[in-house]
Amino acid sequence: MHTPHDEQAGKALEFFREVNLELANLKSIRNLLAWDQETVMPPAGGRFRAGQSATVAALSHQKLTDPRYGAILEQLEEADELDERERINVREARRDYDRATRVPESLVRELAETTSMAYDCWVEARNDSDLESFLPWLEKVIHLARKKAACLCETDNPYDAMLEEYEPGLTVAELDPLLGALRPGLSLLTEEILTSPYQPDESLLKGEFPQVEQMELGRAVVSAMGYQWEAGRLDLSPHPFCTGLTPHDVRITTRYSEGDLSVGLFGIIHEAGHGLYEQGLDAHRFGEPTCETISLGIHESQSRLWEIYVARGRPFWQYWYGRLRRAFPGSFSATPLEEFLRAINQVRPSLIRVDADEVTYGLHVIMRYEIEKSFFDGGLEAKDVEEVWNQKMKEYLNLTPPDAARGVLQDVHWSLGLLGYFPTYLLGTVYANQLYEQARREIPDLEGSIARGEMLELLGWLRDKVHRPGRTWNASQLVERITGRPPDPDAFLRHLQEKYGELYRLD
Amino acid sequence: MHTPHDEQAGKALEFFREVNLELANLKSIRNLLAWDQETVMPPAGGRFRAGQSATVAALSHQKLTDPRYGAILEQLEEADELDERERINVREARRDYDRATRVPESLVRELAETTSMAYDCWVEARNDSDLESFLPWLEKVIHLARKKAACLCETDNPYDAMLEEYEPGLTVAELDPLLGALRPGLSLLTEEILTSPYQPDESLLKGEFPQVEQMELGRAVVSAMGYQWEAGRLDLSPHPFCTGLTPHDVRITTRYSEGDLSVGLFGIIHEAGHGLYEQGLDAHRFGEPTCETISLGIHESQSRLWEIYVARGRPFWQYWYGRLRRAFPGSFSATPLEEFLRAINQVRPSLIRVDADEVTYGLHVIMRYEIEKSFFDGGLEAKDVEEVWNQKMKEYLNLTPPDAARGVLQDVHWSLGLLGYFPTYLLGTVYANQLYEQARREIPDLEGSIARGEMLELLGWLRDKVHRPGRTWNASQLVERITGRPPDPDAFLRHLQEKYGELYRLD
Repeated sequence: MHTPHDEQAGKALEFFREVNLELANLKSIRNLLAWDQETVMPPAGGRFRAGQSATVAALSHQKLTDPRYGAILEQLEEADELDERERINVREARRDYDRATRVPESLVRELAETTSMAYDCWVEARNDSDLESFLPWLEKVIHLARKKAACLCETDNPYDAMLEEYEPGLTVAELDPLLGALRPGLSLLTEEILTSPYQPDESLLKGEFPQVEQMELGRAVVSAMGYQWEAGRLDLSPHPFCTGLTPHDVRITTRYSEGDLSVGLFGIIHEAGHGLYEQGLDAHRFGEPTCETISLGIHESQSRLWEIYVARGRPFWQYWYGRLRRAFPGSFSATPLEEFLRAINQVRPSLIRVDADEVTYGLHVIMRYEIEKSFFDGGLEAKDVEEVWNQKMKEYLNLTPPDAARGVLQDVHWSLGLLGYFPTYLLGTVYANQLYEQARREIPDLEGSIARGEMLELLGWLRDKVHRPGRTWNASQLVERITGRPPDPDAFLRHLQEKYGELYRLD
Repeated sequence: MHTPHDEQAGKALEFFREVNLELANLKSIRNLLAWDQETVMPPAGGRFRAGQSATVAALSHQKLTDPRYGAILEQLEEADELDERERINVREARRDYDRATRVPESLVRELAETTSMAYDCWVEARNDSDLESFLPWLEKVIHLARKKAACLCETDNPYDAMLEEYEPGLTVAELDPLLGALRPGLSLLTEEILTSPYQPDESLLKGEFPQVEQMELGRAVVSAMGYQWEAGRLDLSPHPFCTGLTPHDVRITTRYSEGDLSVGLFGIIHEAGHGLYEQGLDAHRFGEPTCETISLGIHESQSRLWEIYVARGRPFWQYWYGRLRRAFPGSFSATPLEEFLRAINQVRPSLIRVDADEVTYGLHVIMRYEIEKSFFDGGLEAKDVEEVWNQKMKEYLNLTPPDAARGVLQDVHWSLGLLGYFPTYLLGTVYANQLYEQARREIPDLEGSIARGEMLELLGWLRDKVHRPGRTWNASQLVERITGRPPDPDAFLRHLQEKYGELYRLD
């Protein structure tokens, strides 16, 4: 028997689901517009693409911030009849609604317009290595980001509100000790590695690797990882990415260098890791937060787990090295597997974050985090960023950028207003380390399977533990739930020390 | 100096333009969703694609039928300050607004749901040639179409309201005499052609035509027609089509048969004709009705003009036949150009409309028009359609469908509720004939240029006369404006008699 109270809650739930489904559809469409633009859109089509995307973004924003939706949320928060999943959906919807409604529309518009122009300026400034021309834009972006953070802030540090955008629940109070524990350890390990007399032969990955063979090998690896082609695509684009329209339509892109094997192969595995996460969401719940990815950090944990923990490891290549040799007979026939493994895990500090190896990558992220935080709690201004950047680059990586293009201008993020984004890259790796360790504990003979080319059991474990729950828990909760410990920087350091201790024969 | 009155009209115009631009953006997005689905979407993606499209359609409908938009239209209709172009935009927006608001939303939804299911049923019914299973759906579609026509009708014949959807301004009163003039003429000519002892060798177009050579040739022809590749694409799809997102992003598709040359080559030219129309719209006016295509008939006139009047003509092949021979050296080296021309213009009555030649195609359209009209003014019901169909097929084309799949079930249109659509196919050809005749009069030595491979002057003429004006005039007005005469069935008949009289050596 339904009581009138039940009926009311039922109607509210129905409205709630309808709006969420529309929001999910609009998000799919925005993703399609972006994918299309990067892969297949005719060049001239760009002229009107921004307007198309803006129209969808505005409609999404209107729908999400509709006071009727807010009222329904309140009603559902009071209702007793919701089951656990519905409660989670309401909780997550409340988070999105609050974040969307707390920033005034005028500021949203100003941010969109400013970052659109700042991005165009950044593209030119980086090309010309002309920091001066970008500084006024950086200043504006920082100014607007501070205003936005002030609207959203619920803690004593406004930077928390920026972190929350990409890694819900994450705070400076949590990040400071985590990254603080990593910095000296990463620096020390880097130094030890560099002073080892036992350096890999970096020329091994250079050679002639025709694109068609690279594509075939990449597709074979990704298929073995369990990527569902009937629900996915692989295309070429200048900047590889993954976009999930729905769990049934997940598209990854890659690029190849015919002279350098590492670009395409590890890139495609990385994006497929992202793609498997999107394909692993529970399609029956499409339109619900429980069918959405948790955070950029968890997303990155999936790409890094496959790219680094699986595909740069010995078991993986015990199976795939033969295949690689057959694909490129001229390149590896005289190279023992161990030499190849050392080459694909070479550590060398670089000026450019995206070229960085597993060990030094974290230092790039940490210096960016420290700079960004200072925008919010240290009064750092645009004009002083380069000086701080170069100081930290010297201190952490012992490098000096020869120009701004290879220094403070290298990343797109700040021009787009994406402050708070960088830490997720390193967090993802910390999560990946912990998840992979746990998978090794729980899956009998995991690495033996991988060495036989079998990776579906690992995928099944990730599906079950990480993909299916959607936004049921936040990143930190999920990691703790699965591994029994919160995100653990020391475990990550131990992994690095062990792995690179062996590869570089450190004491 | 601006008066307050000016200012008010200015604000209204601004709002008007904004909404129109949003509507145009949403239309682009719907087109992208459809293009993506037919060409590149992963198969499993279909599960959520209908929902994505429905979300955009609903948002468009809400925007178009918003009473604030209606009020602004009224205000602008009263305003004195509008220039000619603005007046046209308001007039066309009024037409769209009225048509969208006069049909109650419940009926719109019922039609969408019914036709979606009717379509699925039609696919199966045609596969199994099982008319019985489709009849209940056809009955429902006719019933709902009648209701819709009753909401929209402004004349004494409700079928006019259906024609208006695809060919604004067109009425039964205009169509009856036009098609009535064509029917006996087409039947007579078909008979004469069939009894001619001088029949073409139809085997000429069969052979081995590798897809890659067909694609290269097709791309070369389409490039010479002036198709802008930086604003366009060519892809494969099972059912060739053209979709224009904006004048800067127009995508055509094609399919090839490696055993039959005529499928791919003329298909690609046909779609490129549509594409040139979309690319020729005035991009500076994107978002205005004056940057929209007039009607399906005018659209078809552009595809037919290129496909038939240009690409099945002697001048075209005087240039391209050498190229064709080089592409397929085994096939045409021994075939004189005249034999090839006769083969690509063969007339033979067929059961299937889409396979029909230039002469008999009109008879397929006319019988469908007569049947559809009877749904509205003759009380024809679904259960009796097959009998009428087969009678007309016998009378007009002297053929008897062996089953419903090759008879009344062959076309998708009725399942989708697209009643009133068919006449535009034939009208397009009548327009094309008249436009091409006029182009020959106005462009000095047009066919001499085509025989030298030069087609850009023709494109320039079409851009100027047909593409640029957008919806400034309706189809019939435009044709009369350009050629000095309203759509003229007799001119079309004369063309056919002359062309086929020569090809078949008729007296």
